[in-house]
Amino acid sequence: MEHDITLSLDQAQALSRRILHHAGFGHGHVKAITRSVVAAQRDECHSHGLYRLLGIVEAAGMGGLDSQAQPEVIDHAPGIVKVDAHHGSSLLAFEQGLAPLQEKAERNGIAVLMINRCFHFSALWSEVEALSERGLAGLAMNPTQAFVAPGGGVRALLGTNPFAFSWPRPGGTPYTFDFATSVVARGEIELHRRAGQSIPDDWALDAQGQPTTDPAAALEGAMLPFGGHKGSALSTMIELLAGPLINDALSHETHAANEEGTGRPCHGELVIALSPKVFLGDQCEAGLLHAERLFEQILGQGARLPSQRRFEARERSLASGVSIPAALYRDLKALTDAPDSED
Amino acid sequence: MEHDITLSLDQAQALSRRILHHAGFGHGHVKAITRSVVAAQRDECHSHGLYRLLGIVEAAGMGGLDSQAQPEVIDHAPGIVKVDAHHGSSLLAFEQGLAPLQEKAERNGIAVLMINRCFHFSALWSEVEALSERGLAGLAMNPTQAFVAPGGGVRALLGTNPFAFSWPRPGGTPYTFDFATSVVARGEIELHRRAGQSIPDDWALDAQGQPTTDPAAALEGAMLPFGGHKGSALSTMIELLAGPLINDALSHETHAANEEGTGRPCHGELVIALSPKVFLGDQCEAGLLHAERLFEQILGQGARLPSQRRFEARERSLASGVSIPAALYRDLKALTDAPDSED
Repeated sequence: MEHDITLSLDQAQALSRRILHHAGFGHGHVKAITRSVVAAQRDECHSHGLYRLLGIVEAAGMGGLDSQAQPEVIDHAPGIVKVDAHHGSSLLAFEQGLAPLQEKAERNGIAVLMINRCFHFSALWSEVEALSERGLAGLAMNPTQAFVAPGGGVRALLGTNPFAFSWPRPGGTPYTFDFATSVVARGEIELHRRAGQSIPDDWALDAQGQPTTDPAAALEGAMLPFGGHKGSALSTMIELLAGPLINDALSHETHAANEEGTGRPCHGELVIALSPKVFLGDQCEAGLLHAERLFEQILGQGARLPSQRRFEARERSLASGVSIPAALYRDLKALTDAPDSED
Repeated sequence: MEHDITLSLDQAQALSRRILHHAGFGHGHVKAITRSVVAAQRDECHSHGLYRLLGIVEAAGMGGLDSQAQPEVIDHAPGIVKVDAHHGSSLLAFEQGLAPLQEKAERNGIAVLMINRCFHFSALWSEVEALSERGLAGLAMNPTQAFVAPGGGVRALLGTNPFAFSWPRPGGTPYTFDFATSVVARGEIELHRRAGQSIPDDWALDAQGQPTTDPAAALEGAMLPFGGHKGSALSTMIELLAGPLINDALSHETHAANEEGTGRPCHGELVIALSPKVFLGDQCEAGLLHAERLFEQILGQGARLPSQRRFEARERSLASGVSIPAALYRDLKALTDAPDSED
């Protein structure tokens, strides 16, 4: 049994940068992707952490992701910032759209950032948290690939379509959630398959549209939306608002990156920002304190706030760095320009 | 066994108007409330239909609802219309805010209508549908009374907080959903209690915070959110956006109308309108047709669209009128100025 490798956050950043530079990513993308994967690793979201670099480098190699794309920021309407990612990562597009989104939200009270033709491999919580760090409430959503059957349906059509929200809290981490609109993440079914375990019968359908407890059959079939028809409706809303409304793809129109370079899992993303300062004016501080009374009542009855575990992990990582399996560390080092050297 | 009474839509409207005039409602409220309860009756949403007039008149009698309140429309910010309902019904407030909301959405791309201090007894689908009739996509949400425990909690804190969305469809009824963020409507538990039936053990907790199959114990305890922690998070978002963000009440701060007249179940409502015309420009028609491909694929695999049953009921009612139980008809007639006369 190998020990895990512990890296400081600076070391994790340096490793990520070296990998992305070596893979030919433009400078802005290197910084934005590094911020994202290191933040996820810091919060112990392992599947979106340093591990994710393996897939990102592979996708860029296949041509599914343009590692040099320059996002184009467009002042689309008084309440809409548009960023065309030009088949690059969503992360740099988001970062470039953030300041104009904030400016519009603080003028109008509410504004939208629409990101088009982006390659999306990050969690949405980091983006809505970035809004809350700027004093805004934020919503974010995007289609993904078609793995989920609509409620009452038999075939995959909807994406696992994440929905994220964040609310600024005075002097603390924000109230943030980010959930897939499928019952579970696809990776959870894959983990059951690898472990030879059956899955609950309300997670997925087989290829014939029948409920199944066999994870392999589920992966060939369709996942189910969370919360039955309600989750399905919410997921459909996400398809519409982050798809046709912004002239971008529905989940069933996206395609995984492939070796022929014809697969581009590109699609859109929609971010909505609301400014408590504009809504509340000189009552803003009181309004934020009012919200705290809700959080106190949730915690006071023994329930947790979403993201609480993630924020606890963040504290640990800021103090002691992050740990990754030795095998993953070797795989990552092999993607740098100096795979045999020490860090 | 008595027969039901069938009324034409005109007769249903006349009955509602007479009841509300007799109860002392101002002219604008009479029209707005009548539109709402007749639309619900037309769509066979019986609990929001003519039956609802009994509760509305009772609440006005108790002073929980100001039947003469004049909503005040305020141009709060470039992207925000505020309507202070002044303890009147939300319905007239919504109607008065609709045109300025549309105007702002069509200028900015996105805009908000915040309604404050309203008495809310209608379903949200009629409001988001009104947006889609004007070519807009719409979201609406509001807190209610604290009947629902947060995920992982033991006591009622959140409302049954409805969440509604509508999307305009060319030449047809919109794509519309409107769901409570509790597992089921509270009335469903009450129906089980009256029928002496047990409820599934994932609907509610008893007063000790334990799952219960006893509907009476559930009504004394707390309902559960739909979809576990995800539904709970969504419900909390609704509390924040339609509560503290708009300087209005959280669900646990509202109080049922009571005979002392001190209970005012008033709270806020948040409506977000998005303009496909602004988002899509000359691609608007193409974008709406793009969305149709999603609906075709949902229907093509045997799934239903939300509200489909309601739209079918609407067709029937437009052709043949609406039916209500004879006992309800007598109760309603008793609230008019001429309870013994024929309609």
